[in-house]
Amino acid sequence: MTDTSTRTDRAAQHGRPVVPSTARWRPLGIADVHLDGGFWGDLQQRNATAMIAHTEHWVERMGWAANFDLAAAGTLPEGRRGREFSDSEIYKLLEAMSWEVGRTGDLDLDRRLRALASRVAAAQEPDGYLSTMFGRPGQGARWSDPEWGHELYCLGHLIQAGVARARTYGDDELVGVAVRAADHVCDVFGPDGRQGVDGHPEIEPALVELYRLTGERRYLDQARLFVERRGHGVLADIELGRSYFQDDEPVRAATTLRGHAVRALYLAAGAADVAVEDGDADLLGAVERQVRSALARRTYLTGGMGAHHEGESFGLDFELPPDRAYAETCAGIGSVMANHRLLLQSGDARHADAVERTLFNVLAASPSAEGTAFFYTNPLQQRVPGEVPDPDVASPRASSSLRAPWFHVSCCPTNVTRTVASLGAYVASSDDDGVQLHQYAAGTVAATLPGGPVRLRVATAYPHDGRVVVSVEEAPDAWTLTLRVPAWAAGATVDDLPVAPGYVAVTGPAAGGQVVLDLPVAPRFTVADPRVDAVRGQVAVEAGPLVYAVESVDLGVDVAQVRVDATRTPRVRDGSVTVRAQVVAVAEEDWPYAGAGATDDGGRAGASVPDAREVPLVAYHAWGNRGPSTMRVWLPVG
Amino acid sequence: MTDTSTRTDRAAQHGRPVVPSTARWRPLGIADVHLDGGFWGDLQQRNATAMIAHTEHWVERMGWAANFDLAAAGTLPEGRRGREFSDSEIYKLLEAMSWEVGRTGDLDLDRRLRALASRVAAAQEPDGYLSTMFGRPGQGARWSDPEWGHELYCLGHLIQAGVARARTYGDDELVGVAVRAADHVCDVFGPDGRQGVDGHPEIEPALVELYRLTGERRYLDQARLFVERRGHGVLADIELGRSYFQDDEPVRAATTLRGHAVRALYLAAGAADVAVEDGDADLLGAVERQVRSALARRTYLTGGMGAHHEGESFGLDFELPPDRAYAETCAGIGSVMANHRLLLQSGDARHADAVERTLFNVLAASPSAEGTAFFYTNPLQQRVPGEVPDPDVASPRASSSLRAPWFHVSCCPTNVTRTVASLGAYVASSDDDGVQLHQYAAGTVAATLPGGPVRLRVATAYPHDGRVVVSVEEAPDAWTLTLRVPAWAAGATVDDLPVAPGYVAVTGPAAGGQVVLDLPVAPRFTVADPRVDAVRGQVAVEAGPLVYAVESVDLGVDVAQVRVDATRTPRVRDGSVTVRAQVVAVAEEDWPYAGAGATDDGGRAGASVPDAREVPLVAYHAWGNRGPSTMRVWLPVG
Repeated sequence: MTDTSTRTDRAAQHGRPVVPSTARWRPLGIADVHLDGGFWGDLQQRNATAMIAHTEHWVERMGWAANFDLAAAGTLPEGRRGREFSDSEIYKLLEAMSWEVGRTGDLDLDRRLRALASRVAAAQEPDGYLSTMFGRPGQGARWSDPEWGHELYCLGHLIQAGVARARTYGDDELVGVAVRAADHVCDVFGPDGRQGVDGHPEIEPALVELYRLTGERRYLDQARLFVERRGHGVLADIELGRSYFQDDEPVRAATTLRGHAVRALYLAAGAADVAVEDGDADLLGAVERQVRSALARRTYLTGGMGAHHEGESFGLDFELPPDRAYAETCAGIGSVMANHRLLLQSGDARHADAVERTLFNVLAASPSAEGTAFFYTNPLQQRVPGEVPDPDVASPRASSSLRAPWFHVSCCPTNVTRTVASLGAYVASSDDDGVQLHQYAAGTVAATLPGGPVRLRVATAYPHDGRVVVSVEEAPDAWTLTLRVPAWAAGATVDDLPVAPGYVAVTGPAAGGQVVLDLPVAPRFTVADPRVDAVRGQVAVEAGPLVYAVESVDLGVDVAQVRVDATRTPRVRDGSVTVRAQVVAVAEEDWPYAGAGATDDGGRAGASVPDAREVPLVAYHAWGNRGPSTMRVWLPVG
Repeated sequence: MTDTSTRTDRAAQHGRPVVPSTARWRPLGIADVHLDGGFWGDLQQRNATAMIAHTEHWVERMGWAANFDLAAAGTLPEGRRGREFSDSEIYKLLEAMSWEVGRTGDLDLDRRLRALASRVAAAQEPDGYLSTMFGRPGQGARWSDPEWGHELYCLGHLIQAGVARARTYGDDELVGVAVRAADHVCDVFGPDGRQGVDGHPEIEPALVELYRLTGERRYLDQARLFVERRGHGVLADIELGRSYFQDDEPVRAATTLRGHAVRALYLAAGAADVAVEDGDADLLGAVERQVRSALARRTYLTGGMGAHHEGESFGLDFELPPDRAYAETCAGIGSVMANHRLLLQSGDARHADAVERTLFNVLAASPSAEGTAFFYTNPLQQRVPGEVPDPDVASPRASSSLRAPWFHVSCCPTNVTRTVASLGAYVASSDDDGVQLHQYAAGTVAATLPGGPVRLRVATAYPHDGRVVVSVEEAPDAWTLTLRVPAWAAGATVDDLPVAPGYVAVTGPAAGGQVVLDLPVAPRFTVADPRVDAVRGQVAVEAGPLVYAVESVDLGVDVAQVRVDATRTPRVRDGSVTVRAQVVAVAEEDWPYAGAGATDDGGRAGASVPDAREVPLVAYHAWGNRGPSTMRVWLPVG
């Protein structure tokens, strides 16, 4: 065990999930950035009042927390419940609670956190190993199933929880458990130990962050070993292929993200972390190349990643079916993790654009309006209305067409809660010259520059309104305020002067001054690269960073029947984004293919009913909150 | 055991795979219909000279045939090779050999058939049970894994092989093995026995056909039990859902085909068989409804079925992505099985149309030009060129983009060989009034009507030429020749008189006369129901029953760059079907979505290079025979 008390006392001042030793921009943490109402503040509030407690309820109800009690009592494997990775849900919940306690100082939540952490601690073996699934008589041996066992994956999440606790509170029992587990991992998998990796990456970013927290190089070295071992066929050649767990090609040789999307993105995050700490430009460049390629060719309009249900994996380039989009919530979070890291290194606005798009259209889409049900997959088209899952029953992971209270594989709800609780960390950064605003949310931002402290208040109703007013409450004499202008924001202005997409540096005003950013959030049509065959002849509607959809509850008929007038710009009417559209009839045929004339659809679209009208759209993140419905983001033109 | 000798001697006269006790049209068998050159005759020749021997080679090489020797020697499970269903490949090979021996009288093949059958016979347990995978110390207990064990599935194929042998030769060792196995199944799973079904249907049609062969009602009763038990949650609720193996809903209640496509189609065939023998109009109607719905909403232009790689399953209605089409070869064969049965009962040309489309564009697509490699999946779009599989290495089932010599799950090659060897059985039928021609292939057709024998010679180069000349070599005084006019064949004529799609009854000419059918096989554009979103704005080219594709080896660039001039009808030039098309440039972007004007693609299709030219297409069944290529059936219009 390593003594971390001094370091964590320092680190706790900021509450940052990711603290690279070197970076173009230094992240600010949840202690620096307070969200105050608005889109993200409200979501954090929903997390505080509903989602975290909902998650606590379900890990108890499913018996996944009790597995630790059984382990401590020596009565496993009898009575163990849940899949091989269920421990990780308790760890992600502990991480979420840690950020939330750090954010709010909620003493009752802190009490619950400590109690849950103690149950975990009681299950830890004397040598630091911790799993309710392996290692006992009647269970698989430790490390006996690297492909599917998820042992290191679980411990990675334990370590992330420990880091979160250390960075928001300081050393305590949870931190100690995490450090002992990390030490054990290094003992077992070190240079002369088992030459293995885990089928599901996660230990890699966890160990690097623990290194950053403690300064203990052993953790970084171990993370590097895991990153470098991968891609050399160290895992079994399963039917899905080794690409499923990124063991087909070394990280530094790969050109794009492939295989299981969450695994690919967690690995990208961990590899970027290793590269940064090692000054390994080759490795960092490889990750940058892969993520950029995936953004250009393997990402949905929503920011969602993963086009295949089979293997929960990336598809080929431009293979992006809206109906069969997997776009797992956890993959969205993985994308935020990877892009956030690359942003801090590169200062490239494309990564912040990707973070924004993914937060608004994947992360925010997962929880229900009440915060008591979640999407696991996030398709861009819903062909059948489906059924509202029983709020009392856990669902299979991807079969539900509406948000479910819990899943047999329930990685997403806990991942959402930990990410929402730490959302402030993605908003802003600083460097020696000033402060950078990457995401626009109402609240306050504080940073300490060499010249003195900066305190900013951000007032905005973004994304529903494009005006962002940054008021300077405290500032040094000379400093720079850098603002991100999203790629879609042609026509943006700063203090009424036109600015181009990318980052705009403004001479920082003195205390009492303000900067006004205006982003054009009027709704607009968007089309896809023609190689995205699945959405040919269709348009999507976006407004600011929000993707919109049509839902059958608003249309009155199946969304398959809508045809949009693409010559009429979408607009806002009575607070709703609307498009001009017709509803066409559908003709039932014995065989769905027929002779064509010269037109695209050969007149088979059915007779247009002459009722062109304004059809209200729903922000994609809010769809599915009004009962069963069909839904589509991409709208046929006609 | 049941004495089958008298019955099989009679049955052997025709060589019919399916002999319903009652039918609108009575099938003719491989002894009645001889294919003589042409598309199907040539494929049968390829089967005779290459495919069957190739299959024999691989079942030995993989050790799947040797498993029976190990079983007989009492040395299983040590040394057992192959998946749990590998026995079925030997049985399907035996079925193929049986039809082929029946068709040609090839004595060397007959010798190989007997030798292989004897190895199987030696492995049969005294009580009739037969499996190399279950029942021995160190193996799973008999019937212990109904969801995945495939025990009854394998025995179903054994029984089918026995029926084929009985109907082409008569009683022999293979027939005896099959009957003993069937008796054992009835002993174990009868009314008072295990109330189970197999996760993979196949035993159902097999038992009905054995009943039809032997007259032993017990087999029919057992098949009915299996059909009726299914759909009541008798199998485990797996993550894919019980719909995977059609255990979600009783057969007579279901409205469409769903879940694993091969399972769904084999079940449909078996349920139709039970319904026919029982005079169960309700059950037959249910199957008819399901198949018709699947043809209207869940079938690819090629006739392929199964839109999901995940679970090898049907997708939702109109969810038919060309790139991710699974369209398993075996599902195509299952569709032929189900539609053939429904055709014989209903006389509905739609089922014969489906059989034709599937034979030409799925079954014929599977084997390579040499007959030594096979497609397992049959996608309608190939996005990456892929690699030519090593002719010496078995492939995973769906990962190869080109035909592979063999698969770890190698259901398709043996299924192709047994179907091709028995192709004659799908060509024609008879009733008291005359003969019906369903498929057009060069050869001869013989039938015995109450009024006397009919002998026909069919001369045609179909599908490359639309003229079919039926010469009457022998006929009674009064008889009717019924010809199928495919649904696509608007403008067809019989003896120069216009005829509409469907079945056309012609007064049968006397011996020496002929009837000339002319089908318009000029290439044509086809479009899809607009609910097939994945192919919106695209056209396909068909000529007669053949679907065409563009292959990058002919285009010179990736097929993603082709834009077809849909105002110019495709035509035949120098023997090739061609379309007028342009090649457009593709622009690399950081983010593949952008603002749109009023047009479908917002000008993002790239600048058209002014080189509109005639692009040759390839018949879909022949694609992939010239090395790595990208390919697409659906061609963007532009």
